[in-house]
Amino acid sequence: MTCFRPLALAVLWLIAVPASPGLAGTLEASVGPLKVEEMADRLHEPWGLAFLPDGGFLVTERGGALWRFEAGGSRVQVTGTPQVWAYGQGGLLDVMVPRDFATSREVFLSYAKPQEGGAGTALAVGRLNDAGDGLDDVRVLFEMTPGGARPQHFGSRIVEGPQGHLFLTIGERGHAELAQDLQRHNGTVIRLNRDGSVPQDNPFRGQAGAQPEIWSYGHRNPQGLALAPDGRLWAVEHGAMGGDELNLIEPGVNYGWPVIAYGRHYDGTKIGIGTEAEGMAQPVHFWDPSIAPSGLAIYSGALWPDWAGHAVIGSLKFDYIAVLDLADGSEEGLRSRETGRVRDVREAPDGTLWFLSVKRGGVFRIRPAGTP
Amino acid sequence: MTCFRPLALAVLWLIAVPASPGLAGTLEASVGPLKVEEMADRLHEPWGLAFLPDGGFLVTERGGALWRFEAGGSRVQVTGTPQVWAYGQGGLLDVMVPRDFATSREVFLSYAKPQEGGAGTALAVGRLNDAGDGLDDVRVLFEMTPGGARPQHFGSRIVEGPQGHLFLTIGERGHAELAQDLQRHNGTVIRLNRDGSVPQDNPFRGQAGAQPEIWSYGHRNPQGLALAPDGRLWAVEHGAMGGDELNLIEPGVNYGWPVIAYGRHYDGTKIGIGTEAEGMAQPVHFWDPSIAPSGLAIYSGALWPDWAGHAVIGSLKFDYIAVLDLADGSEEGLRSRETGRVRDVREAPDGTLWFLSVKRGGVFRIRPAGTP
Repeated sequence: MTCFRPLALAVLWLIAVPASPGLAGTLEASVGPLKVEEMADRLHEPWGLAFLPDGGFLVTERGGALWRFEAGGSRVQVTGTPQVWAYGQGGLLDVMVPRDFATSREVFLSYAKPQEGGAGTALAVGRLNDAGDGLDDVRVLFEMTPGGARPQHFGSRIVEGPQGHLFLTIGERGHAELAQDLQRHNGTVIRLNRDGSVPQDNPFRGQAGAQPEIWSYGHRNPQGLALAPDGRLWAVEHGAMGGDELNLIEPGVNYGWPVIAYGRHYDGTKIGIGTEAEGMAQPVHFWDPSIAPSGLAIYSGALWPDWAGHAVIGSLKFDYIAVLDLADGSEEGLRSRETGRVRDVREAPDGTLWFLSVKRGGVFRIRPAGTP
Repeated sequence: MTCFRPLALAVLWLIAVPASPGLAGTLEASVGPLKVEEMADRLHEPWGLAFLPDGGFLVTERGGALWRFEAGGSRVQVTGTPQVWAYGQGGLLDVMVPRDFATSREVFLSYAKPQEGGAGTALAVGRLNDAGDGLDDVRVLFEMTPGGARPQHFGSRIVEGPQGHLFLTIGERGHAELAQDLQRHNGTVIRLNRDGSVPQDNPFRGQAGAQPEIWSYGHRNPQGLALAPDGRLWAVEHGAMGGDELNLIEPGVNYGWPVIAYGRHYDGTKIGIGTEAEGMAQPVHFWDPSIAPSGLAIYSGALWPDWAGHAVIGSLKFDYIAVLDLADGSEEGLRSRETGRVRDVREAPDGTLWFLSVKRGGVFRIRPAGTP
């Protein structure tokens, strides 16, 4: 794998020009003029976004609430969600609507599940009732065991794999060393069957002393996970200072944290043994300075063919959306007054790009300017 | 009503002498030597405590979890609790077990209920299942409408009245002026029938422009509510600087916030028009400096006859428990290494005093030293 050293000077900063305040901003991008529209407001720490086949969408708030927005704009609270542990970075986190939702009505949620003395990253599923205001038959499919008392690094993005497996990212919960311990779920991407059971072909299944759910390990805090149109799985993770990473996720691979890293500790000291080691994968891209990446989409829509296969990543730190060309590592930055602390980025079924802003407490859509 | 100006010098500070560390401390009180024992640990921001008839007890964590502890010490998570809005002071708050629990299995919970753009103080009820690990048939009995976006002053203590009514305290949610507005639930004590309906004899029922649930108003943030053995209802509330209050709660009464108050704003400026006004009740006691009172019990047990009818109050600010003689306003302070940020105080069926410590993350019991 190649590591593209990012060229800070090469980033194109595209600043939105306020058009009709409170409604939409516009920005000039390499693909032409874009419009940023507010699709939902008055949300507190929105964390995850998922589209429904009827044109509506679901949004989680970290503090515990799940909201359903109808295509027309009205909002409904969805009750029956699991009890969460809402401290620090913990709470209700990602939401995923599977491809068969129209028939299954299933909705998947990741969250910090209360445990004795703390919480563990967990994955639950429930069926959205006919009224669309409650989840029925909620079941816990997976629970990190044990979790821990620290309120950080829950990871928590959910992706439905090409064959219907469930992938979930789990952060190392503030215990870096556990990301190298296969007996623990800390710092891993896990893979489950749709019913929560462990697939026969998981890489560590049957290996003594290893958790069978683990698909990859050595992660710090992966808060972006996305499937590319070619079926490959990508993740972004928060690294130490100067070491945020984009990784191509492959089974059984060790991504090195905290033995190797491009970042430094926040006190400036070196991490582990350096930037590379035998048996540990290199990132495809890293960010120095760190951008605090959260949310990831690999663009596959028809609206912007020039961005096909590009990684679209939210930045919690620099208030922008990075569009990264995976072919050459060049990055284009989309920034408008709406892109404050971007928590999640998703491609909608119609090819528009949607994102959640923590600062604005809203859901926004980016579309070509000029289209209705 | 009399207002006892507290004499800071008269407070007896009773400091615990560590005995067997991690197990129990002892302290000398006016009623003799006391033992402080840890009944549960590893809790994050415990908020409410309620006893079950089998010797067990329930504890809420503000972040969203409800735990059941068995008499033998083991703990079980109780699922099925309502979705909460866990920001700032909001989250899962009080828990109340009614007198008919053995037959009804009902458990009442107060919490910050997510609403569009924020949350409102709410009261829900559910039935504890036979396994004691889940609530069934959870129903919302009351929801403050509208709530608000500010994450403070939810109030939220629940008391079962002498005739089975439900009393709930509601803070003014950071909007002081609304505590004088009978059209709003901010800054009130409300009274409901057991099923959530409004009692016929509520003081403002039928009054145009008034919320019928209101029992008393003009409160700031009442976080302690208790029934005395004589059937009278008492509340403690967080005032402004130097104005925490103990009030005898009577129907239709206006307790004056923010028109009259003994406290000052935190910038030192005067509040409202002074300390008294026609048509507004005086507190029975106020604390200057403020102690940040949370949790209240009116002692009625047989263990300490000298404390009969005394108000027992937790202090979040000075890390002690106040035992207040309502006859003369004198205060005795109970302080041990366990009394860090006391969030709730309850009298157990056997007359021991129990409390929750935020700093220690635990449940503690005070009993006479020397008893087994």
